[in-house]
Amino acid sequence: MLDRYEVRTDLALEEKEKFESDDVEVKGVILEEDYDAEREIQMTRVIIQTEKGARTMGKPVGTYITLEAPNLVVPDESYHREVSVRLAGHVKELMEKLGFREKEDCSVLIVGLGNRDVTPDALGPNVADQVCVNRHVVKEYGKYAMGMDVMNLVSAITPGVMGKTGMETVEIVRGIVEQTHPDLVIAVDALAARNSKRLNRTIQIADTGIHPGSGVGNHRNGLTRESLGVPVIAIGVPTVVDAATIVNDTMENLIRALETSDSLKGVGEVLRSYNGTEKYELVKELISPHLNGMYMTPKDVDEMVVQIGFTISEGLNLLFAGDRNEKNEGLSS
Amino acid sequence: MLDRYEVRTDLALEEKEKFESDDVEVKGVILEEDYDAEREIQMTRVIIQTEKGARTMGKPVGTYITLEAPNLVVPDESYHREVSVRLAGHVKELMEKLGFREKEDCSVLIVGLGNRDVTPDALGPNVADQVCVNRHVVKEYGKYAMGMDVMNLVSAITPGVMGKTGMETVEIVRGIVEQTHPDLVIAVDALAARNSKRLNRTIQIADTGIHPGSGVGNHRNGLTRESLGVPVIAIGVPTVVDAATIVNDTMENLIRALETSDSLKGVGEVLRSYNGTEKYELVKELISPHLNGMYMTPKDVDEMVVQIGFTISEGLNLLFAGDRNEKNEGLSS
Amino acid sequence: MLDRYEVRTDLALEEKEKFESDDVEVKGVILEEDYDAEREIQMTRVIIQTEKGARTMGKPVGTYITLEAPNLVVPDESYHREVSVRLAGHVKELMEKLGFREKEDCSVLIVGLGNRDVTPDALGPNVADQVCVNRHVVKEYGKYAMGMDVMNLVSAITPGVMGKTGMETVEIVRGIVEQTHPDLVIAVDALAARNSKRLNRTIQIADTGIHPGSGVGNHRNGLTRESLGVPVIAIGVPTVVDAATIVNDTMENLIRALETSDSLKGVGEVLRSYNGTEKYELVKELISPHLNGMYMTPKDVDEMVVQIGFTISEGLNLLFAGDRNEKNEGLSS
Amino acid sequence: MLDRYEVRTDLALEEKEKFESDDVEVKGVILEEDYDAEREIQMTRVIIQTEKGARTMGKPVGTYITLEAPNLVVPDESYHREVSVRLAGHVKELMEKLGFREKEDCSVLIVGLGNRDVTPDALGPNVADQVCVNRHVVKEYGKYAMGMDVMNLVSAITPGVMGKTGMETVEIVRGIVEQTHPDLVIAVDALAARNSKRLNRTIQIADTGIHPGSGVGNHRNGLTRESLGVPVIAIGVPTVVDAATIVNDTMENLIRALETSDSLKGVGEVLRSYNGTEKYELVKELISPHLNGMYMTPKDVDEMVVQIGFTISEGLNLLFAGDRNEKNEGLSS
Repeated sequence: MLDRYEVRTDLALEEKEKFESDDVEVKGVILEEDYDAEREIQMTRVIIQTEKGARTMGKPVGTYITLEAPNLVVPDESYHREVSVRLAGHVKELMEKLGFREKEDCSVLIVGLGNRDVTPDALGPNVADQVCVNRHVVKEYGKYAMGMDVMNLVSAITPGVMGKTGMETVEIVRGIVEQTHPDLVIAVDALAARNSKRLNRTIQIADTGIHPGSGVGNHRNGLTRESLGVPVIAIGVPTVVDAATIVNDTMENLIRALETSDSLKGVGEVLRSYNGTEKYELVKELISPHLNGMYMTPKDVDEMVVQIGFTISEGLNLLFAGDRNEKNEGLSS
Repeated sequence: MLDRYEVRTDLALEEKEKFESDDVEVKGVILEEDYDAEREIQMTRVIIQTEKGARTMGKPVGTYITLEAPNLVVPDESYHREVSVRLAGHVKELMEKLGFREKEDCSVLIVGLGNRDVTPDALGPNVADQVCVNRHVVKEYGKYAMGMDVMNLVSAITPGVMGKTGMETVEIVRGIVEQTHPDLVIAVDALAARNSKRLNRTIQIADTGIHPGSGVGNHRNGLTRESLGVPVIAIGVPTVVDAATIVNDTMENLIRALETSDSLKGVGEVLRSYNGTEKYELVKELISPHLNGMYMTPKDVDEMVVQIGFTISEGLNLLFAGDRNEKNEGLSS
Repeated sequence: MLDRYEVRTDLALEEKEKFESDDVEVKGVILEEDYDAEREIQMTRVIIQTEKGARTMGKPVGTYITLEAPNLVVPDESYHREVSVRLAGHVKELMEKLGFREKEDCSVLIVGLGNRDVTPDALGPNVADQVCVNRHVVKEYGKYAMGMDVMNLVSAITPGVMGKTGMETVEIVRGIVEQTHPDLVIAVDALAARNSKRLNRTIQIADTGIHPGSGVGNHRNGLTRESLGVPVIAIGVPTVVDAATIVNDTMENLIRALETSDSLKGVGEVLRSYNGTEKYELVKELISPHLNGMYMTPKDVDEMVVQIGFTISEGLNLLFAGDRNEKNEGLSS
Repeated sequence: MLDRYEVRTDLALEEKEKFESDDVEVKGVILEEDYDAEREIQMTRVIIQTEKGARTMGKPVGTYITLEAPNLVVPDESYHREVSVRLAGHVKELMEKLGFREKEDCSVLIVGLGNRDVTPDALGPNVADQVCVNRHVVKEYGKYAMGMDVMNLVSAITPGVMGKTGMETVEIVRGIVEQTHPDLVIAVDALAARNSKRLNRTIQIADTGIHPGSGVGNHRNGLTRESLGVPVIAIGVPTVVDAATIVNDTMENLIRALETSDSLKGVGEVLRSYNGTEKYELVKELISPHLNGMYMTPKDVDEMVVQIGFTISEGLNLLFAGDRNEKNEGLSS
């Protein structure tokens, strides 16, 4: 409950979970799930269909696909390959929803958001560094000279963060979009999760772009079809938990602990009976001001970010390198 | 109180504070303070004199000097220079306590502890990369050929972390010490603080070396005179707060909030009346197991680590480059 | 002589030298020199005034200022500071030539050209990482709120290289310029020199922008007032020598060696009597095709690039941070 | 011919070629070749059997296996995998020559030589960063607890370069070997080649260790069984060509050009008739002193070093991760 007021998550899946725990059915929101028991990969598709659903969820209308793959933390090449293939399939699924057709050229700009000097925020730059770009080659020689009928044009940029550029990311990306005319932007970013269990093993793919206040660095302006003029698919991986989340969790755990304690049972019940505003005030008091601008991240975040960055770039290379349609048969989900 | 059981700090200053807050005088521990109001630099010297004091403090016998300089977060060159000069003076002070005399050659190995791929743990590698080494040059040409009467031999190593080397840091450093025979090891490391206000603006200099369980990466074995055979001066900067600390702080804040609440005043009093063991059990319950191995760090930790790393390496270069005694007159504290 | 045909240099100073060695006076080109004997800093100002001069020199009309400071390779802080101050003064001089007036706000975009993953090409990214940007802060709070009458707006970008982005650098920078409207672009780049003695101790500042085929990475399109719509000041440091230059030097040395040899004196004379076309053909034959796309660089290029990058960023920070006019009195050349 | 005096190569293969071009049979040296036409992978095994052969070749007695794989520059995953498998097989072959038996535990220390801040010298650190180490885990839990009968202990170190540590690499590695007692050291290093065509597509595996004067950074002391007390297998990839090599090539090309020129045919013949000492003197004169300490490298060296570093680390992981014998059946060459 408290988390409805205070706790930030960039995952639509986690927004949905909050309501489920309260047995509330959310109007205008569809949930689809699929579990691969052998590979232990959970796919969840949250489709926000109406503006009302969007308001309830606090996220814009659109499709949010989440892959949860606990073994992403293990350096198993064939497992990462499997996740790359699924990722490619889901990006293709969202592209088709956006109206992209097979057997058609597509020009895509991949944007690696985040700060390459801060380990848990370096996911986007890692991916942008590793995707195979070819736009300059196709522009120079033409696709027919390269023996291709259908050809994707791939370009990539790491725009940096506002504290180091002095510019909003959307200013930089919009300028590049207006000069190079991609049909689609794919923005890759590190996210904040609600639940520390999800860190570094979850990938969210959404057709709604990046929205203000999301990402590890908290973007001030979004990267969306409205701001860029072309559709934006967002690929995100939670790598941090906000400090406020930890405080909230502690509160929840404390209430639960008090309820099972003989002498303090009453206290837990009192706290639980608080209404939303009261709880909001209490949590605000509990969060030390020094925790603002701080995040929580696991100690092995460096290896996680490198591995998942490779998995995502491989998925994008599978999908776009060469001919999107012929090479990648069977990618449809 | 709770923190006596659960909450980790690598700063002797913070260990001392815990007792002060309880108005307990700690036997065998001396505290000296000095405040430079103009520069806003606080120096605190905690001297643990007896084994009894060491047991109470949970830190070994020795001298721990802390510089707190809030403006370290500001990129002001002359201010950083001032801190470098003070750091050099305090290292010299500890060297003299250890028996090093002026006008004598000294061979020093600077060890940059931590993982260079994890931003808040990269402080040690940053410093080791930037100190001016000369041991190989002096070995080749001799100090007289270089026109020096007194000459410090400086070498530096970044041993890496156990998860990437498969070796204990102490194994690597002891091997190098046995081969190259320095008179002194200076180990630089990122630390965990108790108080998030201290992050990235505090430098601790101690003549006791690095002890097991300290540092961002939690060293399994210490780097001490016992383990290396030569004295070890440790220079540390807190760059993270342990997740457990945040939980503990939340608890403390909650108790305080409850005490001032009309309806719940009684609960706060009940909680405060808990004895140590009861509180320890409660906090243990509140810490979600997923928080183990996680740390909290500020979002701009990359710039902080670069700036303070430069300040420390400049302090060491001031002290050791060329002739320690003649060049650095006025460094004595 | 041969070098007129084959050998590449990005330094106007070296273009000029070629003619001097032949005692040719170049019409439409003015040369001014100034030597600081104490600091051993040589300043050379090559002013190309006419289109005829531009054709002869193979460089566009404009002012090219070169600082040669042999001690830049030495890590002496006060010396680097001196070079930073001079650099700031010369950038200011060129800004005034371009019509920028004191006591007027100026919005500047600093572009760090080159590939951050290739050591000798990382100069531009190093500088862009270290300049103090403030555009986002001023946009948010306004200059008066910050207590300033005159305020420079500084932003910075590292656009990456075409092989990694799939886009021409000029496309990226033009897009950003159109979105953020700077009054001036300052482009920092690593250059190719003709003479290996100049590497890492020379800084060229020019008001002509970056031209096609220049830089370590050989830009396909320039960054100029024509392509960007705003004036472009280029700051460059030679960090590599082209492979073709080494071959040409060897040829020249061989001819000189043959002339002093008793038995082969005649050969040298014969070679020297070759006309331009003959020599061009000979050198083309001598350059192994595998040398294309290769460059020569010193083994300690990593330290050089870090040091000079710091010196340049300090110069730009001196000039632009805060109030350009009041803070930096005495910067006028 | 000239190259016998002046030109440096770290590849035994290139030493051998020099003699072949003169149709000289080298006593005490055996050459074995194998070409995989489909994959375009050339394997060459140079076995120096006698001290006389070693003197002629200028390389110590031992086995030098070279894999030449032109497609290593192409980012084709299955091709790199194939090279990783072959590399693993050849390392195993050399281990068996050194007396290591299957079904026996082996403790191996992987040493990543070179300077991580200089792109073409970063190969060794790249590999050491990516190998899977397990020594600390096995030491903690024991191999039986991990369900293994045979278990390799893998550790890894990046010792840095003398200019940054002030210590000889052999001092650091010997110290670590004496503390951690590996049975075998595998040293990975970037090399200088004679022929620029070989850069970034050639891997040399030798059972002789690293010798003084080899590697991009020119090691002053070797890493050999004599200096470390355990056998040393060296894995090297040429990433640079010495400046002197380019000068020599230019000379050779010039002589060839002169011979086909009508007017200058005689000169070529005169030069070719020079004896060794004369040519040595001539080349020495032609090499500008400023070329000392410089090397030639391709512009895309960053991507090459990352790709080949991954290929080598995968080969070592294939061989050592888990059970060397059961997992990697079919690795025997």
